[in-house]
Amino acid sequence: MEQLKGKVFNVLDHGSIELIDWMGSDVDICCAARISTGGATKTPEEDARLISYLVENVHTSPFEMCEIKLKIKMPLFIARQWLRHRMASVNEYSGRYSEMKDEFYVPDVFRKQSMNNHQGSEGEFDNQTNLKFSKTIDVYSRDTFTLYQHFIDQGVSREMSRIVLPLSTYTSFFWKIDLHNLLKFLKLRMDPTAQEEIRVYADKIWEIVKTWVPITAKAFEDHHLNSKTFSSEEILFLSEMLKKVPDGEKFIKESHLKKRWKDKLLELLK
Amino acid sequence: MEQLKGKVFNVLDHGSIELIDWMGSDVDICCAARISTGGATKTPEEDARLISYLVENVHTSPFEMCEIKLKIKMPLFIARQWLRHRMASVNEYSGRYSEMKDEFYVPDVFRKQSMNNHQGSEGEFDNQTNLKFSKTIDVYSRDTFTLYQHFIDQGVSREMSRIVLPLSTYTSFFWKIDLHNLLKFLKLRMDPTAQEEIRVYADKIWEIVKTWVPITAKAFEDHHLNSKTFSSEEILFLSEMLKKVPDGEKFIKESHLKKRWKDKLLELLK
Amino acid sequence: MEQLKGKVFNVLDHGSIELIDWMGSDVDICCAARISTGGATKTPEEDARLISYLVENVHTSPFEMCEIKLKIKMPLFIARQWLRHRMASVNEYSGRYSEMKDEFYVPDVFRKQSMNNHQGSEGEFDNQTNLKFSKTIDVYSRDTFTLYQHFIDQGVSREMSRIVLPLSTYTSFFWKIDLHNLLKFLKLRMDPTAQEEIRVYADKIWEIVKTWVPITAKAFEDHHLNSKTFSSEEILFLSEMLKKVPDGEKFIKESHLKKRWKDKLLELLK
Amino acid sequence: MEQLKGKVFNVLDHGSIELIDWMGSDVDICCAARISTGGATKTPEEDARLISYLVENVHTSPFEMCEIKLKIKMPLFIARQWLRHRMASVNEYSGRYSEMKDEFYVPDVFRKQSMNNHQGSEGEFDNQTNLKFSKTIDVYSRDTFTLYQHFIDQGVSREMSRIVLPLSTYTSFFWKIDLHNLLKFLKLRMDPTAQEEIRVYADKIWEIVKTWVPITAKAFEDHHLNSKTFSSEEILFLSEMLKKVPDGEKFIKESHLKKRWKDKLLELLK
Repeated sequence: MEQLKGKVFNVLDHGSIELIDWMGSDVDICCAARISTGGATKTPEEDARLISYLVENVHTSPFEMCEIKLKIKMPLFIARQWLRHRMASVNEYSGRYSEMKDEFYVPDVFRKQSMNNHQGSEGEFDNQTNLKFSKTIDVYSRDTFTLYQHFIDQGVSREMSRIVLPLSTYTSFFWKIDLHNLLKFLKLRMDPTAQEEIRVYADKIWEIVKTWVPITAKAFEDHHLNSKTFSSEEILFLSEMLKKVPDGEKFIKESHLKKRWKDKLLELLK
Repeated sequence: MEQLKGKVFNVLDHGSIELIDWMGSDVDICCAARISTGGATKTPEEDARLISYLVENVHTSPFEMCEIKLKIKMPLFIARQWLRHRMASVNEYSGRYSEMKDEFYVPDVFRKQSMNNHQGSEGEFDNQTNLKFSKTIDVYSRDTFTLYQHFIDQGVSREMSRIVLPLSTYTSFFWKIDLHNLLKFLKLRMDPTAQEEIRVYADKIWEIVKTWVPITAKAFEDHHLNSKTFSSEEILFLSEMLKKVPDGEKFIKESHLKKRWKDKLLELLK
Repeated sequence: MEQLKGKVFNVLDHGSIELIDWMGSDVDICCAARISTGGATKTPEEDARLISYLVENVHTSPFEMCEIKLKIKMPLFIARQWLRHRMASVNEYSGRYSEMKDEFYVPDVFRKQSMNNHQGSEGEFDNQTNLKFSKTIDVYSRDTFTLYQHFIDQGVSREMSRIVLPLSTYTSFFWKIDLHNLLKFLKLRMDPTAQEEIRVYADKIWEIVKTWVPITAKAFEDHHLNSKTFSSEEILFLSEMLKKVPDGEKFIKESHLKKRWKDKLLELLK
Repeated sequence: MEQLKGKVFNVLDHGSIELIDWMGSDVDICCAARISTGGATKTPEEDARLISYLVENVHTSPFEMCEIKLKIKMPLFIARQWLRHRMASVNEYSGRYSEMKDEFYVPDVFRKQSMNNHQGSEGEFDNQTNLKFSKTIDVYSRDTFTLYQHFIDQGVSREMSRIVLPLSTYTSFFWKIDLHNLLKFLKLRMDPTAQEEIRVYADKIWEIVKTWVPITAKAFEDHHLNSKTFSSEEILFLSEMLKKVPDGEKFIKESHLKKRWKDKLLELLK
């Protein structure tokens, strides 16, 4: 983690993520969780078992004991989604205080509107069309900035001049968040239904998290990212199906699953 | 709901829950969720489908649009757990400002320490022992209050006199919370692993919720209270088992499950 | 307040504020604050005195007991400031889910950049220049929307097409907030240093607040909006000055100020 | 600050505060505040000026960029007040999970009930009475713990046995909070109207803050701890008084106050 500090990860055409600072680690999570047992430090295996247990059972408070601070540069249409997550601290570049910079997101690949998913995209245009669209947006962005600069030069206040800038304009902000809220954020923003431009930022932060708190990251993968939740109706159907497995009960009992997981599956056979 | 307003529900020996006020309903949740479609009011069936979708996919913000305010009286050892939930507004009776009242929780049934679950109880004592324990606590509580009253009478400040009062002392507070955070709270506090004395309060509030927002309550039951989440390892094992079901794929396809649920199950067979 | 429900207030050229719902009143604030005295309803004068005391002494929790829900339509550059206030619930129109509408803020008066205040404006352009600027922005906005529509028509996903839209584009959202956080918000956003375009929205909401909770609004005016805070250094200087007033002490004592206010001033003379 | 890490400060008879970890410093606050100017590091004088400006004008977000984690041991009646502050992360010792320890707060000085201040104390008892009261509470606490231990020995669950324990029982928790919220907390809990037993904890943390972020601490002292806020009515009266000062305007203009402070005072003379 020390090696990542101050390193700047490039994202999209002009964006970036920089690790500014952090506090706490996997060990500190265990330490907070063990306050009731006054427990001394344990072995890495016991720590991993505890963290897996905490993640599985949604005991989230120990994960609030870790904190991370990043400096992020991203286009406004993504920043708007990002800053809707309320449990974080933010200091953002102000277009009232300073002039905006001539930096815009110009996609090189354009995704088509999904027909199934109202708020998603699906499939891409061919190279030639992408090129044409990119060119259009590039020219348009420059024109817009010229207009912005024109207003500034005429003495129009920055707070008013900026209203012509497009949602593709880049902004920067410090973002500080605790690990519990970061994981909640990542689950939503790494999801395949999230807009790709925000996903690439979330994915990069997930890489940092895996270096920062590897045990927590692994448990989060098992119990959240790669888990599945079944509704009461699905559970009913699932248990009907499982009853049809020849020797199902024996199959479960002889598996390598942990006891509490065997119990959960055996319950479905009743 | 109008009929519940001002009604006082008794809980435990001296506790209570009173519905003071509320804002919003199932319809308002749909209305907020439909802001992007500008959608006019729909049929109750469409509302139910939308709410079920929102709950299943953890789109929580529309549920924040409903708010409820209760007046609650409960023993301190429960109130301490209760008030750890931060996303709520609280005005509590102050033992600095006013004298505490002579009201204590005296259990009539005592639960034994669970051997499996460090933080739970399991099994009860026989009637005679319960009676004996109750009597002990009753006498002890009265003695404590006499001591408290003695300090008050001597002119000791209320803020100091109260330190002798036991955790069984009753307190009262107004509690205002939005529906999203209330459901999160109820999931945790109606859980069988929650302490019974807090569960009886949560259960009573759940009854109010079912009257207040019946469609949301039903969806929450299906997708949260009675759902099950399987970890990546369990999912792997589950899919191994399901592959053993003769004609499993056909079985799923011919079920009455919704399409997206069929898809989820079919994926397990791959 | 009932009469304001559902009424739409116009703000800026295409913006609006609509009162959707609310919960609580001045009386409910007093009721929550009096939980420790178990006090029955009091006279309006006693309520006013209590509320003034609560506001002056920053006892904020009773004000959280009131809640308001508005539907607001405003340009994006203002919405970005608005939604930085975290203690509120929001459901916003989604440009991923639905097509954006052809509505842009076109100022008719342009403010110049302030030379003293980095983040403010000062003075206006003459009519002719304003007209010219307005025209430029109007044409530019239409062109932008044509480009957006072009992308949409070509099948580009909504989530990508929107990146060309300017910060002057209108968005809509439901906004629910408690009275304590609303007042904090209004203090900041009604301030002369706030951008005028956000101030006109804040001012309109302040009008609603004055109808909703008139006693609280009056106390807030006296103790926050029209109050002044003096630093330790200023206090020192102020007390030096006051000592120079002939018969200052007598002057204070004979004033019509409340006792605790007299005490505060007399302290300055020591 | 490095030297304070891991050090345990004793508070009350058995309580303590331990500095576990922290993130950020005065320099980081400036760095976050300067994101709009992209400013490089400045001189300490410029940093002090910026921080003073931020504190005076209630620009609070940069102070959220610093975080501190403490381990605190305190009696329950104080912990209940402490944990009402919602913007913090907490992991507390659980009386359900582990047996409570035989540690109680036994005051050696008893404060009398204030007659003016409903929720405060005023004046102390004489030595002999203090001794008698201390003795009473000490004996009572031991008896209580014997009763608790008796229930535990009989096999009563920990979650039920604890209800007889008094509010003077000590608990422990990790407490993590950002600097902005910590300062808000300290202002309330270092106030003379706060209960003395919580004030001694707040005072100790304030000592740590002064070591951690000395520039911020100084600005907070000037603009919050030692400032005074005057209501509109007081302001009116104050300006009447100041007008009576011979040569008041000259007096202000020739003072060593900063320009914006002079302006504030001169405004009162109008």
